[in-house]
Amino acid sequence: MTYVRDNIEAMNAYVPGEQMPGSEVVKLNTNENPYPPSPTAIDVMRHEMLDRLRVYPDAKAGRFCEAVGNLLGFERDWVLAANGSDNLIVMIARAALGPGRTLAQPTPTFPYYKTQALVEAAELINMPCDPESFAIDVDGLLEANADVTFVANPNSPTGVTASVGELRRLAGGLDGLLVVDEAYADFAEATAVELPRDDANVIVLRTLSKGYSLAGLRLGYAVAQPPLLQQLWKTKEIYNVATLSQEIGLAAIRDQDHMKANTEMIKASRAELAEQLTRRGCRVWPSEANFLMVAVPRGGAAACGEALKRRNVLVRYFHQPASMADKLRITIGTPEQNQVLLAAWDEAGSHSEF
Amino acid sequence: MTYVRDNIEAMNAYVPGEQMPGSEVVKLNTNENPYPPSPTAIDVMRHEMLDRLRVYPDAKAGRFCEAVGNLLGFERDWVLAANGSDNLIVMIARAALGPGRTLAQPTPTFPYYKTQALVEAAELINMPCDPESFAIDVDGLLEANADVTFVANPNSPTGVTASVGELRRLAGGLDGLLVVDEAYADFAEATAVELPRDDANVIVLRTLSKGYSLAGLRLGYAVAQPPLLQQLWKTKEIYNVATLSQEIGLAAIRDQDHMKANTEMIKASRAELAEQLTRRGCRVWPSEANFLMVAVPRGGAAACGEALKRRNVLVRYFHQPASMADKLRITIGTPEQNQVLLAAWDEAGSHSEF
Repeated sequence: MTYVRDNIEAMNAYVPGEQMPGSEVVKLNTNENPYPPSPTAIDVMRHEMLDRLRVYPDAKAGRFCEAVGNLLGFERDWVLAANGSDNLIVMIARAALGPGRTLAQPTPTFPYYKTQALVEAAELINMPCDPESFAIDVDGLLEANADVTFVANPNSPTGVTASVGELRRLAGGLDGLLVVDEAYADFAEATAVELPRDDANVIVLRTLSKGYSLAGLRLGYAVAQPPLLQQLWKTKEIYNVATLSQEIGLAAIRDQDHMKANTEMIKASRAELAEQLTRRGCRVWPSEANFLMVAVPRGGAAACGEALKRRNVLVRYFHQPASMADKLRITIGTPEQNQVLLAAWDEAGSHSEF
Repeated sequence: MTYVRDNIEAMNAYVPGEQMPGSEVVKLNTNENPYPPSPTAIDVMRHEMLDRLRVYPDAKAGRFCEAVGNLLGFERDWVLAANGSDNLIVMIARAALGPGRTLAQPTPTFPYYKTQALVEAAELINMPCDPESFAIDVDGLLEANADVTFVANPNSPTGVTASVGELRRLAGGLDGLLVVDEAYADFAEATAVELPRDDANVIVLRTLSKGYSLAGLRLGYAVAQPPLLQQLWKTKEIYNVATLSQEIGLAAIRDQDHMKANTEMIKASRAELAEQLTRRGCRVWPSEANFLMVAVPRGGAAACGEALKRRNVLVRYFHQPASMADKLRITIGTPEQNQVLLAAWDEAGSHSEF
């Protein structure tokens, strides 16, 4: 007797990226931002906040959603706040998936979408990216015409980005929902956030975890037409965003200068690291995110990842799908962290460890 | 085209208790605690926390779960932390409900359980409490033998508590899960938290929202046998508890003296308010929670609630079920807030407003 549904019993849990405690570790495995968040967050934590914790948060996170709306040019009811983007992904799954319904995704991609198909006992349709360019297969996704199509854009772990025009074509041709997960959009050249204005079936997901350096806050938001957000609302926790997260998030959204300066530094480091790894014989895919997908020479990705870990540098190796077997995903650190990575890389290479 | 499942489209969303901004309002409608949380939370917010927000939280909230386990006498893997109890209720619903499965509950109770039945397209079985005592119907729940039975204990909005012996009998006779929601247990005389040791089908839910004055934090936890918690884990968000919530929650759990002094004050005020309302002709049910269920004389509950609201005192009136039509649920405030409530009550009564 397991007390849960058979599909839950049978599935494997999502496995988060490895956390290795210790300040000496250079942690380039979970796409966190190496620079601190806006210092205005400190003020939020100090001022009169203790008594605010006594009462429930605003269930709608109204001030935060209004600030996001002002930033992007939407009314407040086009924005839905959540306990990180993963909370939004769960809401979408609960509302639109289930037995007899379908979830389509490019592969490789963020593995948590697949987890939702397993939890909801929905059919998963994998649509492999182009084996060379890792472009997503828009025509294949159109043909699949799933109830929910998830597209991370820029995609993870590839860093490759579909154009807004391609996404618009996808949205227009699908009968179901198109979820554009823009977790990494703050490092990209374009955004699909305007699509929901015309396309009632598009949900754009954003997070403060990456560009705003606030992964610990758990704060994301969805942009979509209000009738659709009202349906998602039904599936959420009553009070899903903590008071401190709402207030710190509001301060961060208002400090656009800090975010932009932060992401510009990452983008400069990204170009530099891509060049350095290319010089070392790696193939590096063009990335619009805060990480690089890197094919390691002679297929030694797993060995290289282990060799770096022995030197206190964590990067991400994916056992699946097969197209990732010769690759690593490396988060962009500070210039100093990237130097530590390259030194460890060179030392491991000189010992023929990969 | 609504893009969501028919049962989602058809259902109504859960409606949170009214929030009326303004410091002059005496807010006795959502069972918040009138006293501040442990002052040690301040230290957490000040010290070196900004850089911690940059990275993801511990997905397992390990230190918090270990502290809870130490407090209650369980190993860490018997405790699962979540973004408030409502996050745990969602996890249970996702794991164990769905079409063709059943959810049983006493009525009246916390309306959010019903929301889960609607989201999951599960069958809802309502088992009315005794119309006089508002005791839950253990035999009826045993006969229903649902896949998931939710029992809030103390129950809300009644404040009435089932004995641990009754809950043990219920657990032993059910083939499905028994969820004992102990949101208000810090104000009660007993707890069912020992039941999971013997009963593999029992999940006890706790929250820091009430006894610890941390409703804004969104932090709850489940106690159950590890194999069952491993199944629930599969349905949760990857990083469901924010870093600040984990750290402040840890400080609060470690300051048991503060929580106990806080809840003792509430219990003293509860006895005093019950006496005062009884003197005013109300029937007051014995409560082990931080609120009272009160039958207003001459059935004037709705009018009384409106009259109090005009005087800036918020209490909770429930339109459903019918057994609540003549009753109010009143949160225990500070002695001063309770005096304001009683003065407003007397003034409204003297003007024949209810």
